[in-house]
Amino acid sequence: MLLALAEAARGRGRVEPNPMVGAVVVRDGSLVSLGHHPRFGGPHAEVVALRAAGELARGASLYVTLEPCCHVGKTPPCTEAVLDAGISRVVSAMRDPFPRVAGGGFSRLADAGVAVEVGLEEAEARLLNAPYLKRLAVGRPFVTAKWAMTLDGKTACASGDSRWISGPRSRALVHELRGRMDGILVGIGTALLDDPELTARPPGPRTPARIVLDPSARLPTSSKLARTAREVPVWLAVSSGRAPADRLDALTRLGVEVLPFPGDGPIPIAALLDELGRRGLTNLLVEGGGRVLGAFLDAGEVDAVQVFVAPILEGGDHSHSPVRGLGADRMADALRLARVDSLTVDGDVALRGHLPRPWLQPGFRA
Amino acid sequence: MLLALAEAARGRGRVEPNPMVGAVVVRDGSLVSLGHHPRFGGPHAEVVALRAAGELARGASLYVTLEPCCHVGKTPPCTEAVLDAGISRVVSAMRDPFPRVAGGGFSRLADAGVAVEVGLEEAEARLLNAPYLKRLAVGRPFVTAKWAMTLDGKTACASGDSRWISGPRSRALVHELRGRMDGILVGIGTALLDDPELTARPPGPRTPARIVLDPSARLPTSSKLARTAREVPVWLAVSSGRAPADRLDALTRLGVEVLPFPGDGPIPIAALLDELGRRGLTNLLVEGGGRVLGAFLDAGEVDAVQVFVAPILEGGDHSHSPVRGLGADRMADALRLARVDSLTVDGDVALRGHLPRPWLQPGFRA
Ligand SMILES: NC(=O)c1ccc[n+]([C@@H]2O[C@H](COP(=O)([O-])OP(=O)(O)OC[C@H]3O[C@@H](n4cnc5c(N)ncnc54)[C@H](OP(=O)(O)O)[C@@H]3O)[C@@H](O)[C@H]2O)c1
Ligand SMILES: NC(=O)c1ccc[n+]([C@@H]2O[C@H](COP(=O)([O-])OP(=O)(O)OC[C@H]3O[C@@H](n4cnc5c(N)ncnc54)[C@H](OP(=O)(O)O)[C@@H]3O)[C@@H](O)[C@H]2O)c1
Repeated sequence: MLLALAEAARGRGRVEPNPMVGAVVVRDGSLVSLGHHPRFGGPHAEVVALRAAGELARGASLYVTLEPCCHVGKTPPCTEAVLDAGISRVVSAMRDPFPRVAGGGFSRLADAGVAVEVGLEEAEARLLNAPYLKRLAVGRPFVTAKWAMTLDGKTACASGDSRWISGPRSRALVHELRGRMDGILVGIGTALLDDPELTARPPGPRTPARIVLDPSARLPTSSKLARTAREVPVWLAVSSGRAPADRLDALTRLGVEVLPFPGDGPIPIAALLDELGRRGLTNLLVEGGGRVLGAFLDAGEVDAVQVFVAPILEGGDHSHSPVRGLGADRMADALRLARVDSLTVDGDVALRGHLPRPWLQPGFRA
Repeated sequence: MLLALAEAARGRGRVEPNPMVGAVVVRDGSLVSLGHHPRFGGPHAEVVALRAAGELARGASLYVTLEPCCHVGKTPPCTEAVLDAGISRVVSAMRDPFPRVAGGGFSRLADAGVAVEVGLEEAEARLLNAPYLKRLAVGRPFVTAKWAMTLDGKTACASGDSRWISGPRSRALVHELRGRMDGILVGIGTALLDDPELTARPPGPRTPARIVLDPSARLPTSSKLARTAREVPVWLAVSSGRAPADRLDALTRLGVEVLPFPGDGPIPIAALLDELGRRGLTNLLVEGGGRVLGAFLDAGEVDAVQVFVAPILEGGDHSHSPVRGLGADRMADALRLARVDSLTVDGDVALRGHLPRPWLQPGFRA
């Protein structure tokens, strides 16, 4: 199953909003074939693995990271392919919460006399497809919070200067990450201070929309984002009660798309994510600044973090801290990451981890 | 030489204020013997290695991390032991800046016909003995700044609560570090909020003095530090113009030693370190809080850092940041650490590194 999970991960960035799926055919304890779902609209993992196995699949076991589908989607149902191939046992990491599957795949197989086992490495399978599971559970994209900070926890000097904290190889990793996202989001504070492009350079499998939380529509028409809005989409989340019509007009003329939210306060994070979910986003990267990351953390909407810690000391009473907002009252209430992995990238330490979320629990049903 | 350096490091925590020294005898390309200076007052590394080599030292090469001494100190001069043993070539990583040696050891050996080479792995040797070199160069103890922070760069919640950020194994490492120090220092902010003991538990080779920067002598007589001052020394750095005599009396009666500094401002870091140097401290651990670490960084007196990054997110606009003070104006001016090593300790990442200092430069002379 771990092999099937590794195989599944090869589809990352290409299959979304579909789940990543991997399958392995095993016969008499020996590996026969492997397969993964390679891209959105492409063949399912089971079909790839079964095709590669050919006649050897007859009487073999199929290990698959997600329940085989039993409905006609972009491709015919996998359950039928499994039965046609003569597989005698299916071991699956987890049930597919997709409403048109949701246990139906397992029933179809069991009814046809295939031995079905569910739950092997389920926790790993859930982590792998956390973005898919979040979308199905709450209709919102999976949020990865990303920042680079000094070894003394600063993301910018008091002046706002933050170039550069992490090294060129860490920044290259960020661009790689961006190229797998559906959206990249910053606050207007960061947009004004850094005038970023928020594109993946070189481009990846996806071209993420660039989203700015900007209640008063302060984004300058001369900013890099506004000037390139016709090439790569820019969505400006504004507060209807605060954004002046003339500014919205000027930005719209440049190709910026306005997402209005009622009232005149900060952009409400849950409503924003609902809207982004409706727009079909599976993966959202929130790149700061501290206020916006704090708002996501306070809203309980950070799913994973990717942090680069650079071996430099900045100091300073008024330097920026990566995550602001309300925060936890006591250290014991701070959120603990699971599955942290750390990696040294030149001098920087890159840390990645998931936050606990209900759909990561084995057996979770929405 | 790298072997000699590793051997030298075995004396860490035991030899200070002496330098750590390692020596290796090599004959025809084969290792004959190893030695290190095991403890203050103990035999020198060269003598240990030469004794172990016995007659095999005749005509052999001696690799030694520091210039052999040529004066009678606690032990007879090593140069004479080298000559008596019949060593024909000495390879040394660096000159000993100690005034009674300072090149004299090399001259004595060269004059007696021994081939002398200096500078192999000098940068490493300087890092190893950075505390010894700092003391000789400027008369001040080597400052290791230590803190534990969350993945979003916080050392305490807005309330001051900071228990616990790092895990039990990281905290055990801190106790091990403390046990090799001559002094452990905190600001009165930390002393009041955390009421710490600042002892090494279990005890290490040294019992560090506990030092509090407390201009107004606010340390409560009921604090753990004050109540245990007769067991382990507590030094209170106060400002003469601000500390009330009755408070100083009460604390002195409990065994607290007062170090008065003129004026009524914060404790001046350079003058404080001069005083600690006069008191014979080689290694000082500064454990916070943010204001005091900021003052050390601003004064340019942080030599190394030991940071524990815990996989938790705290958030919060008013959470504490590990290093405050003035800080750098631009990110490009932030101090870059050299020789960073990182280590995962349970879930925490422990990062250690040196700051650039003149005496770490090969060839440096005070
Ligand atoms: N090192 C890194 O990885 C990194 C990454 C990004 C940014 N930075 C640095 O961070 C600094 C900017 O951070 P920042 O905190 O000042 O700005 P920010 O978080 O980028 O933007 C804050 C602004 O976003 C708007 N906003 C809309 N909805 C919001 C909500 N729900 N919660 C909070 N804000 C909302 C508000 O605009 P209005 O004021 O108009 O209401 C708010 O002032 C810059 O110095 C930048 O260089 C560093
Ligand atoms: N996570 C960790 O590793 C860690 C470690 C230590 C502390 N902490 C947390 O940090 C917080 C305390 O930090 P803090 O910054 O408030 O206090 P602090 O740095 O411990 O102490 C600051 C006080 O020290 C005195 N002081 C004397 N000379 C000074 C100088 N040259 N520069 C600056 N201060 C000088 C001043 O006292 P006067 O006001 O009387 O003048 C000043 O207010 C606590 O919440 C603690 O839990 C966390």
